[in-house]
Amino acid sequence: MSHNSFGHLFRVTTWGESHGPAIGCVVDGCPPRLALSAADIQPWLDRRRPGQSKYTTQRQEPDAVEILSGVFEGRTTGTPIALLIHNTDQRSRDYGDIAERYRPGHADVTYDLKYGIRDYRGGGRSSARETAMRVAAGAVARQVLGGDVRIRGALTQIGPHRIDRARWDWDAVDANPFFCPDPDMVPVWEEYLGTVRKAGSSVGAVIEIVADGVPPGLGAPIYGKLDSDLAMALMSINAVKGVEIGEGFAAAALTGEENADPMRMEDGRLTFSSNHAGGILGGISTGQPVVARFAVKPTSSILTPVASVTRSGENVEVATRGRHDPCVGIRAVPVGEAMMACVLADHLLRHRAQVGDDVRTPALPPA
Amino acid sequence: MSHNSFGHLFRVTTWGESHGPAIGCVVDGCPPRLALSAADIQPWLDRRRPGQSKYTTQRQEPDAVEILSGVFEGRTTGTPIALLIHNTDQRSRDYGDIAERYRPGHADVTYDLKYGIRDYRGGGRSSARETAMRVAAGAVARQVLGGDVRIRGALTQIGPHRIDRARWDWDAVDANPFFCPDPDMVPVWEEYLGTVRKAGSSVGAVIEIVADGVPPGLGAPIYGKLDSDLAMALMSINAVKGVEIGEGFAAAALTGEENADPMRMEDGRLTFSSNHAGGILGGISTGQPVVARFAVKPTSSILTPVASVTRSGENVEVATRGRHDPCVGIRAVPVGEAMMACVLADHLLRHRAQVGDDVRTPALPPA
Amino acid sequence: MSHNSFGHLFRVTTWGESHGPAIGCVVDGCPPRLALSAADIQPWLDRRRPGQSKYTTQRQEPDAVEILSGVFEGRTTGTPIALLIHNTDQRSRDYGDIAERYRPGHADVTYDLKYGIRDYRGGGRSSARETAMRVAAGAVARQVLGGDVRIRGALTQIGPHRIDRARWDWDAVDANPFFCPDPDMVPVWEEYLGTVRKAGSSVGAVIEIVADGVPPGLGAPIYGKLDSDLAMALMSINAVKGVEIGEGFAAAALTGEENADPMRMEDGRLTFSSNHAGGILGGISTGQPVVARFAVKPTSSILTPVASVTRSGENVEVATRGRHDPCVGIRAVPVGEAMMACVLADHLLRHRAQVGDDVRTPALPPA
Amino acid sequence: MSHNSFGHLFRVTTWGESHGPAIGCVVDGCPPRLALSAADIQPWLDRRRPGQSKYTTQRQEPDAVEILSGVFEGRTTGTPIALLIHNTDQRSRDYGDIAERYRPGHADVTYDLKYGIRDYRGGGRSSARETAMRVAAGAVARQVLGGDVRIRGALTQIGPHRIDRARWDWDAVDANPFFCPDPDMVPVWEEYLGTVRKAGSSVGAVIEIVADGVPPGLGAPIYGKLDSDLAMALMSINAVKGVEIGEGFAAAALTGEENADPMRMEDGRLTFSSNHAGGILGGISTGQPVVARFAVKPTSSILTPVASVTRSGENVEVATRGRHDPCVGIRAVPVGEAMMACVLADHLLRHRAQVGDDVRTPALPPA
Repeated sequence: MSHNSFGHLFRVTTWGESHGPAIGCVVDGCPPRLALSAADIQPWLDRRRPGQSKYTTQRQEPDAVEILSGVFEGRTTGTPIALLIHNTDQRSRDYGDIAERYRPGHADVTYDLKYGIRDYRGGGRSSARETAMRVAAGAVARQVLGGDVRIRGALTQIGPHRIDRARWDWDAVDANPFFCPDPDMVPVWEEYLGTVRKAGSSVGAVIEIVADGVPPGLGAPIYGKLDSDLAMALMSINAVKGVEIGEGFAAAALTGEENADPMRMEDGRLTFSSNHAGGILGGISTGQPVVARFAVKPTSSILTPVASVTRSGENVEVATRGRHDPCVGIRAVPVGEAMMACVLADHLLRHRAQVGDDVRTPALPPA
Repeated sequence: MSHNSFGHLFRVTTWGESHGPAIGCVVDGCPPRLALSAADIQPWLDRRRPGQSKYTTQRQEPDAVEILSGVFEGRTTGTPIALLIHNTDQRSRDYGDIAERYRPGHADVTYDLKYGIRDYRGGGRSSARETAMRVAAGAVARQVLGGDVRIRGALTQIGPHRIDRARWDWDAVDANPFFCPDPDMVPVWEEYLGTVRKAGSSVGAVIEIVADGVPPGLGAPIYGKLDSDLAMALMSINAVKGVEIGEGFAAAALTGEENADPMRMEDGRLTFSSNHAGGILGGISTGQPVVARFAVKPTSSILTPVASVTRSGENVEVATRGRHDPCVGIRAVPVGEAMMACVLADHLLRHRAQVGDDVRTPALPPA
Repeated sequence: MSHNSFGHLFRVTTWGESHGPAIGCVVDGCPPRLALSAADIQPWLDRRRPGQSKYTTQRQEPDAVEILSGVFEGRTTGTPIALLIHNTDQRSRDYGDIAERYRPGHADVTYDLKYGIRDYRGGGRSSARETAMRVAAGAVARQVLGGDVRIRGALTQIGPHRIDRARWDWDAVDANPFFCPDPDMVPVWEEYLGTVRKAGSSVGAVIEIVADGVPPGLGAPIYGKLDSDLAMALMSINAVKGVEIGEGFAAAALTGEENADPMRMEDGRLTFSSNHAGGILGGISTGQPVVARFAVKPTSSILTPVASVTRSGENVEVATRGRHDPCVGIRAVPVGEAMMACVLADHLLRHRAQVGDDVRTPALPPA
Repeated sequence: MSHNSFGHLFRVTTWGESHGPAIGCVVDGCPPRLALSAADIQPWLDRRRPGQSKYTTQRQEPDAVEILSGVFEGRTTGTPIALLIHNTDQRSRDYGDIAERYRPGHADVTYDLKYGIRDYRGGGRSSARETAMRVAAGAVARQVLGGDVRIRGALTQIGPHRIDRARWDWDAVDANPFFCPDPDMVPVWEEYLGTVRKAGSSVGAVIEIVADGVPPGLGAPIYGKLDSDLAMALMSINAVKGVEIGEGFAAAALTGEENADPMRMEDGRLTFSSNHAGGILGGISTGQPVVARFAVKPTSSILTPVASVTRSGENVEVATRGRHDPCVGIRAVPVGEAMMACVLADHLLRHRAQVGDDVRTPALPPA
């Protein structure tokens, strides 16, 4: 058991605090002889990096990843891959004034309730900075999955403003600072987030991750389900309060007829005429796109003072200054993609272990 | 790694199929010298048992649990507790006509895609029958948690009909066949579900589980978070498509000001004036009630024919006869409670291991 | 983490006490579509069964195994395989006189020191009866390994009497009640053990397990080594006090030249001209026979009174009556074979997960 | 599951190769608020460091450890502790001439058989350099165990020369370059090892580790036994071929009377008049000293040419030049101590989780 590892056969252990000298991770179980260099990882980190628009924290970190082990002459060796990023913009003095007072809605009070020790420097271990290592590990996971599996994420809601799914355009996602797939929604979010930012406020968001090309058969009953592992992985991201697969909560309002995904053999292949299930039945992938969604709460760091307490039990009001994201959901998109990649890579190895690479029913070739 | 176990220190392994001779589980890691007998487990199983109203499957199973190990003279010994329930109402001939055809929306097609073998008897391992053992294990978990922790569940939505939270009355929950906390909603659901049942249709639901008396400090960063473990546990229940903690998806539409849970010291105790967080910050319990919610899809077993395929690749139409629940969400309430109990018991032991039983900050005694 | 499970991908969880109603195990992770019935398991249990000669305990247990799940129409389904054996010869009154006094050299004192509870019935969970389930699980493991891997065990020492390895004859092993591979040693052991038995005494033994046909590449650095997993597995057997691989402790007295295993390509295959390494280098199988050895202490149950204490802290003398083995090492042979089988099956699946089934170096085909 | 982690609740993950830029480890699960700084770790690393006498490899590595996370203001925070040592003396050209040929008795052939890739630089991941991180982790484990538990190791045999146990003197151990507890044996080993070293040969050794002050009750049946975990931990050290607890293999030749450890209450405390068991009964500590022993084979790196093969399948003779230890067993002493410390720390946390800190039987206070 480890509180700082996830995955079973593709296993990632992260370490580090936002204001220590470095953060890092160890990726264990990666198959040998895969091509891997820092250049395969860095672009994904760059997508997550703060300071790229006025809608994310102005903290400046180059986030340059180093590979310290597990790769020899450009190929993985099968031994653990250690990745490290030095922290370069720590400015711990920014946080000095709140060393004794808990930030409402923040993990510092529960860390102290649990451990009896307070690392007040910018969140310490609970900082979203840790997610940089998830993105790095996710890049390794993509090498394991290979080019046939394509994992993409997008923001579908900011505050009260939801995209129109009929206008969904994957090409639009990287053309705006919000990972927004609906071009018509971009100016609405721009104006709304501008207001939120100027007010020193924050707002929540919903992110959707879609994996195409996932082979059928990944996942396992009963407690190794693909969807339950996705739920754990996505809920472990900072500030996430809800996770859905396929129809998600909307399924509660549907009848069995409405929610059915009819099947047909077409050209000798199993096909589905809809995907309410989000690509997973009984915890096992169907071969359709795997669709997951998660909700991120508004960050608790706001300028408006909120009632709080100090370590010594005094009542105070706390307003959080510093460099924070008005909508942490934006930078959660590459993190969500990375978690999807890691979960799928793990299940690919788990499937190989028990069953092998073959799909076994001759009449039903891979979708 | 095990696909059929959950929890780490309070660890449950289940086995068995709906139409085999028995189902069972092994509960490992239970502390010694706790009082435990079948009488502590049976009432929880009785709550989940089918056939108690016309809104659940008419399958009749007494579900009498036997303790085969780990208990001596009425107390746990610290060794593994094996629990077993014999299957008595199997009628496997009911399912004979669909031995070669996949039920749309059901796990039988993905099991076959994965394993290349088809146990067509009523769902086999994917049957909700497995959840009886979760309920049994949950009863053991409640003994571990002790009387100060109180775990209750309720149905908050069936199909399009949601309860009014202002009318929430825990005492009402056991006074109707729906675990409905809103007495005014009961006749609405009765009429609605009656129609669904007569049409041979099915419908989804939302369940809420609340744990009172949870001590602060349970859970752990980063991948041992209380909420991510709850998400996995609840998503692993059959037919669940979404999980929320506290505000859940509604948090996406809130601002930081709206979502804040202000803190105050009152009578020397840390208190919160709201609970948007659902009792968990940074993956660690705050001492407030832990609130989780999950959505169950409508069962795929309906009388209306749906397009499907056979094992040999022919296109067919499938209508599911047999004894099924029009709303599987109803019987998911005791299962959700059990999963909450198991996750909390596991985290209680994990907390003890690393930190001990004390809450460490003197100014902040247990809530 | 579980104290009652072993293996990772081929994972076995056992439960049950010697004097409860039954003992059992759950085998998780078994590949699907393997032939399996009780008839594949029972013969291995029969080899271990007590009461077959005057040199083992006279306790009579038919040890008839039942398969309760995970097998459908004679083939494994990929879901957990539950095995159960009813206890039929419990006679707990035999042990009533030692309910309050600890047996010297027995686990009952440490169980009580740990758990604060005393299950005095014949050892409870610490009884060697638990090893029946290891043998049952080992039979499943043999199905996973297939016919090319052959696992055999023999006794090489009883008390001061060691076999002559030059006379080793596998065919002799099943022709005597001692699993002795040296026919000339059989009468020596018969006479010696007869004396021990009549004196109500006991004696230790050494067992050797050899696995032929193990493919190269099984095992993994650094903490998933094949030999370290074998060491754990064999040391977990009741009464074992030492484990060796290949030369074992004798290697300490050798020079590098004496201990070298020279390699040659012969007929396009990698071959070794000796096997000091016991088939494992760097924790990974070489393709040579895997050779492990373990030492079993004399059982602590003897007629000679030994100083001991009671639960309430009085000094007493304890002599153990009842039906015990004069040399528990004899029945440890099938148990050791089973542990070897389980460890190899687990590593076979682990290898598949990370690397696949191929041996990758073209010049070095499987030995 | 991880091939590069050990322990469950005190969990260590190591990474790195002998000729990469650095090696490191992550220690997860450490309790919070323990004093910890590099100064607590460095002395143990210095004991293991090569180049300190002519009997160990002349490779020069300062092995200066850095703490990168998990410690704040001199105390552990409960979050993962990352430790790192830069490699400074890599000289990979020393090994260039054996890039294509396998060293007999070395792991390079099995790594290649498994992974299909050859990191020929000085052993890569299989190098004993990895054990530096075990020693570092062991220093953290000692902080967890506290000052009452004392773990010491010694060499008891080099080649054919065994110490006389009657002359055992712990104070002598650090007064000679062999960790030899028998002062009279030191000159014998000096002369013998000098001869071995000059001949470019190597020789095996036996190491004994003793832990005093271990509380009773650590360890757990059946597959979480203290001795089986020690066996795994010690067998995972490079070149180890055998592990013993207490009497070890000598127990095979004893009778039950000879092997008994009589118990008495003395001054209200449970005492044993001998310790054949090595402080462990039924996998659980008795409160006596825990005694483990392991055998290290002679290193395979010798000047005498040995038959071998190349990657492309040619027969060759290989003599290993370079800077190697004539007796790797010497530097295994601090490594064995560290593994004992890690296993005990893990079991201490496991015991706390299930049972708490108390010893439960009133009549039997902690030994």
